[in-house]
Amino acid sequence: MSAPDAPARRPRVGATCWAIGDGWIPPYGTGEDPTLASHESLCLLNAGPDDARVEIRLYFADRPPAGPYVVVVPGERVRHVTLNDLDDPEPVPRGTDYSAVVLASAPVVVQHTRLDSRQAANALFSTIAHPVDTFREELR
Amino acid sequence: MSAPDAPARRPRVGATCWAIGDGWIPPYGTGEDPTLASHESLCLLNAGPDDARVEIRLYFADRPPAGPYVVVVPGERVRHVTLNDLDDPEPVPRGTDYSAVVLASAPVVVQHTRLDSRQAANALFSTIAHPVDTFREELR
Amino acid sequence: MSAPDAPARRPRVGATCWAIGDGWIPPYGTGEDPTLASHESLCLLNAGPDDARVEIRLYFADRPPAGPYVVVVPGERVRHVTLNDLDDPEPVPRGTDYSAVVLASAPVVVQHTRLDSRQAANALFSTIAHPVDTFREELR
Amino acid sequence: MSAPDAPARRPRVGATCWAIGDGWIPPYGTGEDPTLASHESLCLLNAGPDDARVEIRLYFADRPPAGPYVVVVPGERVRHVTLNDLDDPEPVPRGTDYSAVVLASAPVVVQHTRLDSRQAANALFSTIAHPVDTFREELR
Repeated sequence: MSAPDAPARRPRVGATCWAIGDGWIPPYGTGEDPTLASHESLCLLNAGPDDARVEIRLYFADRPPAGPYVVVVPGERVRHVTLNDLDDPEPVPRGTDYSAVVLASAPVVVQHTRLDSRQAANALFSTIAHPVDTFREELR
Repeated sequence: MSAPDAPARRPRVGATCWAIGDGWIPPYGTGEDPTLASHESLCLLNAGPDDARVEIRLYFADRPPAGPYVVVVPGERVRHVTLNDLDDPEPVPRGTDYSAVVLASAPVVVQHTRLDSRQAANALFSTIAHPVDTFREELR
Repeated sequence: MSAPDAPARRPRVGATCWAIGDGWIPPYGTGEDPTLASHESLCLLNAGPDDARVEIRLYFADRPPAGPYVVVVPGERVRHVTLNDLDDPEPVPRGTDYSAVVLASAPVVVQHTRLDSRQAANALFSTIAHPVDTFREELR
Repeated sequence: MSAPDAPARRPRVGATCWAIGDGWIPPYGTGEDPTLASHESLCLLNAGPDDARVEIRLYFADRPPAGPYVVVVPGERVRHVTLNDLDDPEPVPRGTDYSAVVLASAPVVVQHTRLDSRQAANALFSTIAHPVDTFREELR
């Protein structure tokens, strides 16, 4: 069986700007397993060959945006960014409505996940973020 | 480390019309924490510089649409709209199938979330809404 | 405050072909509330003025497709189709992997939801389906 | 009532490259029903007439990509691939951050689902994957 096409060594997978709307880190959780602590994550895939510098900006209801939070995702690697852990330039407030825009120097894929363990059994959601793929072109 | 491009102060992030299909506010809930009450939300991000006037229209199985419900999202701010709280021009019925169309005067991002706490441990879902990005062009 | 543009009475919201991949109706459930029975739904919004005839085709791992299941969604109305309830031309098997293609005679929006109440507290997922928006054009 | 257009025997439904960001197989689970074991799946629909050879590549935080994992989805059939079960060329590690790129020789639809049964009541998420639909064209 042959591959569906010549080896795809340098695919451009994703977009350079993404956004999510429903950011809200549950303010508490239950359970002893640390991976069951309430949290939100932005899961970043860089399937291309070059490092991607990723800037995350957070937007709120009643104050100016925070950030950028800077993450480098090496080529052909992933970074599942736990928003609870970000603290530069400032921590992400808990129990607070926010949204996020992700800007990358190379195409990435972004998926947004929340684990809410405030009650005895955790709840999960996840969605591919909204790709704002015409971003760069509009700026130039 | 330099930014991936010149500072992006005025990105156009999102679309001016969005839709969701599965609206249904659970008619009851459990738990003392008010943020654990059963609810649905439309989480709106306006990452642009100008205020966005947002109109939400609700569609039902057996009656004409309701609305518009009007929300203003200031530039660089978010509004996580809890559908349970809307009451102008009329409350959103509980335990009733509906869908929604969101029309905005500037690009926004819309994410649709449900928290269902009818049972002892809550359940969550969330999805980026469907961007109807050719809306304006078709109307002109 | 004026509307963001002239009253949009006839927006074309959605697409005429949609698809979902992860169909699987949990074979049992718990709880006395019938809305908490395990189920899957395809939630259809027809925001346009004309009735939409919607055909749902189901695909399986080991047999030819089933359907079409036909649903009419009147203009400016919704139909949240519970897949458990479909029986013409045949019931949808429980505990069986399937996928679905939705073909509509007018633009609709499709959201796919599962409620799994096999355990003491239900679990939920929902996602906007995949819009196959170039479908009609390719066929002509 | 007539069909909305001539019988659509050969629709092109989907894309030939898809990606997901938040791969993470929960390392344990509860419950006696094997379908309630913690797992992740990539649900593949091939609605076209021809077999699709599908290659899944997995990306990690700290090591080179794994794969391709090869799955053949016959025409008009589905394959709900449980990532826990993949073992050629190597098993998928549990409790480990990963992402995936799916490359197909014919258009498919991909939906990504996680069932997490580490606690007494399972949690679920599902999202349509990100369609990288310009992939082929860029390579040629």
